[in-house]
Amino acid sequence: MAVILQIHFPFPGPFGEAMVEALTPLAQGINDEPGLRWKVWTESPERHLAGGVYLFDDAESAEAYLDKHSARLADMGVEGIQAQILEVNEGLTAINHGPLGA
Amino acid sequence: MAVILQIHFPFPGPFGEAMVEALTPLAQGINDEPGLRWKVWTESPERHLAGGVYLFDDAESAEAYLDKHSARLADMGVEGIQAQILEVNEGLTAINHGPLGA
Repeated sequence: MAVILQIHFPFPGPFGEAMVEALTPLAQGINDEPGLRWKVWTESPERHLAGGVYLFDDAESAEAYLDKHSARLADMGVEGIQAQILEVNEGLTAINHGPLGA
Repeated sequence: MAVILQIHFPFPGPFGEAMVEALTPLAQGINDEPGLRWKVWTESPERHLAGGVYLFDDAESAEAYLDKHSARLADMGVEGIQAQILEVNEGLTAINHGPLGA
């Protein structure tokens, strides 16, 4: 069953286009993560937050990625990570055009 | 600029197929919300949580919807709503196939 991982944390920047330039290699690597269907990258330059919403094939893949990503963020000095892994209700999601494809 | 609204809260159920049956009319109504592109419905039957991830055209639409939805949930007796509205980084999202269409 598909699951959503949502995560956000305090982040000093860069944001916007400068974030794209700095983190393109990381994003390219994330495409190789087992079970990943997609990631929407999120940010708040005003509140100094960054994060993402991910769709994974199953909870095991999402949990493995969260462990890896949390360790990577800790290495970058990030503290205060807020993360949730939740199952997708596919029937209701279909009504609201939620994208569940790879 | 597109924004993500992520929200979850304690929820006694129903979950799964029974949630689809109970909340299909609500989901159909959500399609009429101004600025909404899509919603992925989320749930955790084990932890008694429900929620969703929404993509809106802009922060104003997301904030207006969050106000309306929070009031509706409060009327249902829901407490402890966790919500975040975050901007989308479109360049990084494109690399990871994040779906930003309507």
